[in-house]
Amino acid sequence: MSEEHNATETGTTSGGRRRRGAEGRRAARRGVALEQLTYIDRKLAPFEILNDEGLSLIEQNAETVLAEIGIDFRDDREALGMWKEAGADVKGERVRFPRGLCRELLKTAPESFTQHARNPARSVEIGGKSTVFAPVYGPPFVRDLDGERRYAKLEDFENFVKLAYLAPAIHHSGGTVCEPVDVPVNKRHLDMAYSHIRYSDKPFMGSVTHPSRAEDTVAMAKLVFGDEFVDQNCCITSLINANSPMTYDDTMLGALKVYARAGQATVVSPFILSGAMSPVTTAGTLTQILAEAMAGMAFSQLCRPGAPVVFGTFASSISMQSGAPTFGTPEPALVLYGAAQLARRLKVPFRSGGSLCGSKVPDAQAAYESAQTILPTVLAGVNFVLHAAGWLEGGLVSSYEKFIMDVDQLAMMQRFAEGIDLSENGQALDALKEVGPGNHFLGCGHTQANFEAAFYRSIVADNNSFEQWEAEGSQRIENRANGLAREWLRSYVAPAIDQGLDEALQGFIRGRKEAMPDAFH
Amino acid sequence: MSEEHNATETGTTSGGRRRRGAEGRRAARRGVALEQLTYIDRKLAPFEILNDEGLSLIEQNAETVLAEIGIDFRDDREALGMWKEAGADVKGERVRFPRGLCRELLKTAPESFTQHARNPARSVEIGGKSTVFAPVYGPPFVRDLDGERRYAKLEDFENFVKLAYLAPAIHHSGGTVCEPVDVPVNKRHLDMAYSHIRYSDKPFMGSVTHPSRAEDTVAMAKLVFGDEFVDQNCCITSLINANSPMTYDDTMLGALKVYARAGQATVVSPFILSGAMSPVTTAGTLTQILAEAMAGMAFSQLCRPGAPVVFGTFASSISMQSGAPTFGTPEPALVLYGAAQLARRLKVPFRSGGSLCGSKVPDAQAAYESAQTILPTVLAGVNFVLHAAGWLEGGLVSSYEKFIMDVDQLAMMQRFAEGIDLSENGQALDALKEVGPGNHFLGCGHTQANFEAAFYRSIVADNNSFEQWEAEGSQRIENRANGLAREWLRSYVAPAIDQGLDEALQGFIRGRKEAMPDAFH
Repeated sequence: MSEEHNATETGTTSGGRRRRGAEGRRAARRGVALEQLTYIDRKLAPFEILNDEGLSLIEQNAETVLAEIGIDFRDDREALGMWKEAGADVKGERVRFPRGLCRELLKTAPESFTQHARNPARSVEIGGKSTVFAPVYGPPFVRDLDGERRYAKLEDFENFVKLAYLAPAIHHSGGTVCEPVDVPVNKRHLDMAYSHIRYSDKPFMGSVTHPSRAEDTVAMAKLVFGDEFVDQNCCITSLINANSPMTYDDTMLGALKVYARAGQATVVSPFILSGAMSPVTTAGTLTQILAEAMAGMAFSQLCRPGAPVVFGTFASSISMQSGAPTFGTPEPALVLYGAAQLARRLKVPFRSGGSLCGSKVPDAQAAYESAQTILPTVLAGVNFVLHAAGWLEGGLVSSYEKFIMDVDQLAMMQRFAEGIDLSENGQALDALKEVGPGNHFLGCGHTQANFEAAFYRSIVADNNSFEQWEAEGSQRIENRANGLAREWLRSYVAPAIDQGLDEALQGFIRGRKEAMPDAFH
Repeated sequence: MSEEHNATETGTTSGGRRRRGAEGRRAARRGVALEQLTYIDRKLAPFEILNDEGLSLIEQNAETVLAEIGIDFRDDREALGMWKEAGADVKGERVRFPRGLCRELLKTAPESFTQHARNPARSVEIGGKSTVFAPVYGPPFVRDLDGERRYAKLEDFENFVKLAYLAPAIHHSGGTVCEPVDVPVNKRHLDMAYSHIRYSDKPFMGSVTHPSRAEDTVAMAKLVFGDEFVDQNCCITSLINANSPMTYDDTMLGALKVYARAGQATVVSPFILSGAMSPVTTAGTLTQILAEAMAGMAFSQLCRPGAPVVFGTFASSISMQSGAPTFGTPEPALVLYGAAQLARRLKVPFRSGGSLCGSKVPDAQAAYESAQTILPTVLAGVNFVLHAAGWLEGGLVSSYEKFIMDVDQLAMMQRFAEGIDLSENGQALDALKEVGPGNHFLGCGHTQANFEAAFYRSIVADNNSFEQWEAEGSQRIENRANGLAREWLRSYVAPAIDQGLDEALQGFIRGRKEAMPDAFH
């Protein structure tokens, strides 16, 4: 388990994996998460549900889709020309790929890459045995700490960046943690990138809503990291959704081209509500996902061979009665496990999963569904996990309370991925001999030496007696999460930033904002 | 997936895996669970976290515990004599086992066995690739449908038996689904066994609180199945807890002897709150669990070679601050996966897990913790799952609402365990060709032919729009579960029973009750 031992800059100084003594106990009681964990380095082999034969079958079918049906690349002549040049069969906007072409092109894509953070201790590895948790992406609404459901504002955006900065098992600041709809649509990407850079020191994602906004993000990254460094290293990841089924549009292709050519990472993600955007069956959905992802990822390699690219998958089922998306059910979990295996065979990093749910409130439905997504996410060996915290209501809402509950679960998943300690201390034979039949282990030396680190301590679960719980007001978990979110935001201290850099970023943003009239659509 | 196609006797007649047409849709809307699933026949290989080397290490350490520390068999001279006879070193009540003795004795235990139900279609296989879900066991309290937390009554007991009878993915009626404290303690086992037999036709568990009560349960089973059949087949399972660490007491040994000698199954379960009853480390806990389980299971084979026996494990951590048990955290999941692997190596069935939680109410804490237990339970390949539904508040409370939410999750787990359909229909290549880029799959023939069975439909999740959800009263999942529990109990119709058998059972109970004064302690 790789864990940081540096104290963070939240106003407290003592370090160490788990802080000891009175100061540590006070910090724990305050609930302020001080010690950051780096990305997960999984010690457990992934759970696999398909054998080689099944995987080969799906790969063959995906090649059939690519060769016989093809993928549309819409409103982008340049992309069509690049595909023609690469040997694909281009008719109108339909591109058909000779069997093996995409796979061949993908050989230049890295199996794993580092995304750099402005604090080097927060850089993450994406690929291989790593798992990186990032917050929810995209909701236009928030459910705030007064329980109101309303449109998100820039202040909410900053708050979620701050919470993600403080949460130990959030390794990545994410992207559109909520949509700040109070800022003009053509300018908000600047404020979003600034928030990630200024209020966090974890890695972040760039704008994909217009090629020029992607260019702005790259320009801001260059202010932080330097031109040469950005050209040679990944400093931005970006979410490029396919318009499933089997279509990429000019907006997404435009952003993809900017980032790939700048050497930045794209997460090429078929966005699937099975039954509507893909076949109702799991194997059929996997076939389509693989075909779409291969075509999109291969295109990134046409833009710049070696550009980091991630095989993405967002998969949900729909209610065949209402058409609404559903989460936490068995079928998306099967898709997730299968797609993770397909990505590993392609030797590219994989993105999927999260803490997804359809519930409108952070109740047991939200929790069952989220757990039934995040646990498969970790067991499948997903490398990059968007929506790991804060997701509510099918992704329409970023919830403060849910965010806190989710990050507690993520820390548990991180601990779980460490596996079992088989050292002599872990075996505890001396403790067994010391205590013996009929006695208890609470006071023995081995317990005393290990108890502080022995068990994960939830930040929001109540394990008191019924009587004590009742005396403390019969609170539900969301009440406790609410209190903790307020406390984290109150105690938040921004990470240090170079004054000159901060001014340069603000100057760049001012210049860009002044160069365009506000747009709200 | 083995599923029953018989209509049950709940007043509706049509069968089929998923009922079709208007009648089926009405039934689905009513939420009354009509079609019973048989036990799970897992198509997926279990998730494993220890390699052979790690498992061997723990086995060696467990043999060291058995040989050098030993296990206490308290207040049972007969047991001590049997161990001496078998070649163990007996000093006082401490039994030390030559290395390999327990493992050798366990060779007569079956790797898998059938527990018969009075409805043969409900008989379950325990062992191998099967997973059997049974309700919560043991709570003295209920949280009732009016939200009150109070002592459980026989009426509650009967209600939980009825709900378990109706729940499709509950395969087993369980045992003490709650403790009917309104019935004298020395007589309630008779009413409990009668409830399981009369109000359900699924397999059930017997009393273990006194040897004479175990004998009563065997006698009642003989009325149902016949003397000869019971002697030659498993018709009762029973929960035999170790007094961890490393102790068996006379009550548990007394019940174990009755059941094993009658050819009935015992689930020999170390009951572990790590840090108190076992070392704080996972490997140390696994070592102790294996030693305790081996000694207890081997004893069952001394009672009757070939008697069905299950390797049980109840494992939780404790809060090292308050001493309270905690659930859904990473460490018990690691213990669960490890113990399942150890049981497989011993070639005996395994019991563990459930839908465990510490929360006082069916909120998100309850759901996160339950999901973080039941999903590992299924992935680990547990064969017999007590506490699969209804568990609340650390097992002090049987909750009607939680029961309904849990059985929804269980049905999802059952679907998940089917894995991915790779048939031609599953591959859906024709659908992909028919629909093509940019269109949708909702109306295509493949979707139409498959949609009714394609996705698991939750009985309590809300997936409507926010506006619709709000218009319907902004209900939380527990409100919907409450309504469904009431509806199930209202619509419940008891399975048919032979009049003569019913009279014989009632006569037996009357006789036994008249033979003893009431006792309440």
